[in-house]
Amino acid sequence: MSIHSVLVTGSSRGIGFGLVQKFLESDKVGLVIAASRPSATSELLTIKNKKLHLVTLDVTDDDSIVKAVEQVDQIVGQKGLTILVNNAGILQGYGFTDKPNRDVVNQTFDTNITSPMMMAQYFYPLLKRAADSQPGNTFSSSRAAIVNISSILGSIQLAQPSDNGIKKLLDYSVSKAGVNMVSRILSKDLEKDGIMCTAVHPGWIQTRMGGEHAPITPED
Amino acid sequence: MSIHSVLVTGSSRGIGFGLVQKFLESDKVGLVIAASRPSATSELLTIKNKKLHLVTLDVTDDDSIVKAVEQVDQIVGQKGLTILVNNAGILQGYGFTDKPNRDVVNQTFDTNITSPMMMAQYFYPLLKRAADSQPGNTFSSSRAAIVNISSILGSIQLAQPSDNGIKKLLDYSVSKAGVNMVSRILSKDLEKDGIMCTAVHPGWIQTRMGGEHAPITPED
Ligand SMILES: NC(=O)c1ccc[n+]([C@@H]2O[C@H](COP(=O)([O-])OP(=O)(O)OC[C@H]3O[C@@H](n4cnc5c(N)ncnc54)[C@H](OP(=O)(O)O)[C@@H]3O)[C@@H](O)[C@H]2O)c1
Ligand SMILES: NC(=O)c1ccc[n+]([C@@H]2O[C@H](COP(=O)([O-])OP(=O)(O)OC[C@H]3O[C@@H](n4cnc5c(N)ncnc54)[C@H](OP(=O)(O)O)[C@@H]3O)[C@@H](O)[C@H]2O)c1
Repeated sequence: MSIHSVLVTGSSRGIGFGLVQKFLESDKVGLVIAASRPSATSELLTIKNKKLHLVTLDVTDDDSIVKAVEQVDQIVGQKGLTILVNNAGILQGYGFTDKPNRDVVNQTFDTNITSPMMMAQYFYPLLKRAADSQPGNTFSSSRAAIVNISSILGSIQLAQPSDNGIKKLLDYSVSKAGVNMVSRILSKDLEKDGIMCTAVHPGWIQTRMGGEHAPITPED
Repeated sequence: MSIHSVLVTGSSRGIGFGLVQKFLESDKVGLVIAASRPSATSELLTIKNKKLHLVTLDVTDDDSIVKAVEQVDQIVGQKGLTILVNNAGILQGYGFTDKPNRDVVNQTFDTNITSPMMMAQYFYPLLKRAADSQPGNTFSSSRAAIVNISSILGSIQLAQPSDNGIKKLLDYSVSKAGVNMVSRILSKDLEKDGIMCTAVHPGWIQTRMGGEHAPITPED
C-alpha cells in the first residue's frame, strides 16, 4: 500500500499538525500537503522536509478553497489527491442556557459541517483523478478517500446534556452529528468512483480545543 | 389529559396547517397558536374558531421570534405554553454533484437546525411556566413539550445517496440528522424541568415539500 498524496486542513496546530508530522514520518506517504490559515503557520514553518507542501486555506472561504485546489492540482499532478483529511474545526462552547446566539451556532455549522462538504465537492476532481489513476486497491475497494475528523460527541445515541460541567457542547455536538451524516451520504455517493468517505473520532486529545485535562497528546 | 396551549410554526400550509386543524378539532387542546410568516397566512385566515390565535413568525429572524414570544406570553397567560411544535422547514434540493453553494447549505441549516434550537431557547420561559403550573402529569413525567418535526431522511443509519432520483437531499438530510441531535441533547437538558423534547417523523406527506407522489395527505 502506498499513498501518493494527502492533504490535511487545520494543520497549524493540534491534531492536524500531529497528523502532518505522522504522514511525513511514514514512508508509505508521498506528498504531504499541510493546509492552514495564513496567520498560523508558525509550527509548520519550522519543519524541513521535501515531502511537505504548505498551502493557505480557510475552509470557510470558497475563494480560498478554489485557490487551494489550483495549487494542489499543481503539486499532486496526474496522480491526483489520494486522501483529503477534513480536520479543521471549532468548538465555541455554547449551551442551552446561554443567551440565544444564532450567529455563533451558524458559524459552528459553517465550519464543522458545511466546510467539509464544500471541501469534498471542490476537491472531488482531484480525488477522482487519484482513484482513476490507480488500478489496484489501496484500501479495500477504495482508491482515494475523504476522512472527516468528527467526535464521539456527535453520536446521537450517546447524546449528553449540552453542558457537561467542563464544556458547553450544544452546537459542537450537533455539528459533529451533522458531519457524520455528511460522511455517510457521501460514502454512498462516491462508492461508484472508488472514493471512500468516513468520519473518525480521534479520542479526547490535549489541544487548544481538547484542553489540558485530555488523556492523549497529539504525538500519541 | 388536557393541553392548555400549543404553538405550531410554519402553519401557513402543508403539515403545519394540518396540525393546526387537528388541534382545533380536539377538545383536549385549549389555545391553538398558528405561527407563520406574514405573507402566507391566507388558508389560516379562512378559519373561524375562538381557540385560534394567529401570530406572525419567521423562525430565521430573531426579532420576529422575540416579538412572537411577547404576543404568545399575552395569549397563554399564567399557564404558559404547553407544547411548541417546530414544524417550519425547507427542502432546497441540493446534491453532491451540484455546483458547490455554501449559502444554500447554510440557509438549510439555519432554518432546519438553528431555528428550532433558537425557538426552544427563546420560548423556554413560557414552556417552563407551563410545566411549573401543572402539578399532575400530562405525558409521563413531562408537563410541557417541544416537538421537532424531523424526517426519516435524518437517520444516519438509513442514510441514502444525496440524489435518490426524485429529489436531491444532501443538505436536507444532514439538517434533519442535526435537529435529531438537538432534540436528544435538549431532552437531557430539559428533563429536570419536566419539559420533554422529541423529534418525530411525520411520514412522507403530500405538501409543497413532499410533492404529489407522497402516499399520505396532511388531512390523514
Ligand atoms: N481535541 C480533542 O479532544 C478532539 C476530540 C474529538 C474531535 N476533535 C476534532 O479534531 C479536529 C482538530 O481539533 P484540535 O483538537 O486539533 O483543535 P485545535 O487545537 O483548536 O485546532 C483547530 C485547527 O482547526 C483550524 N481551523 C479552525 N477554523 C478554521 C478555518 N476556518 N479554516 C482553516 N482552519 C481552521 C485551526 O487553525 P488556526 O490555527 O488558523 O485557528 C487549527 O489548526 C477538530 O475537527 C475537532 O473537532 C478534537
Ligand atoms: N412532506 C413530507 O413528506 C415531510 C416528510 C418528513 C418531514 N417533513 C417536515 O415537515 C415539516 C413541514 O413540511 P411540509 O411538507 O408541510 O412543507 P411545506 O408544505 O413546504 O411547508 C413548509 C412550511 O414551513 C414554513 N416555513 C419555511 N421557512 C420558514 C421560516 N423561515 N419561518 C416560518 N415558516 C417557515 C412555510 O411557510 P411559508 O408559507 O411562509 O413559506 C410553510 O408553512 C418540515 O419540517 C419538513 O421537513 C415533511
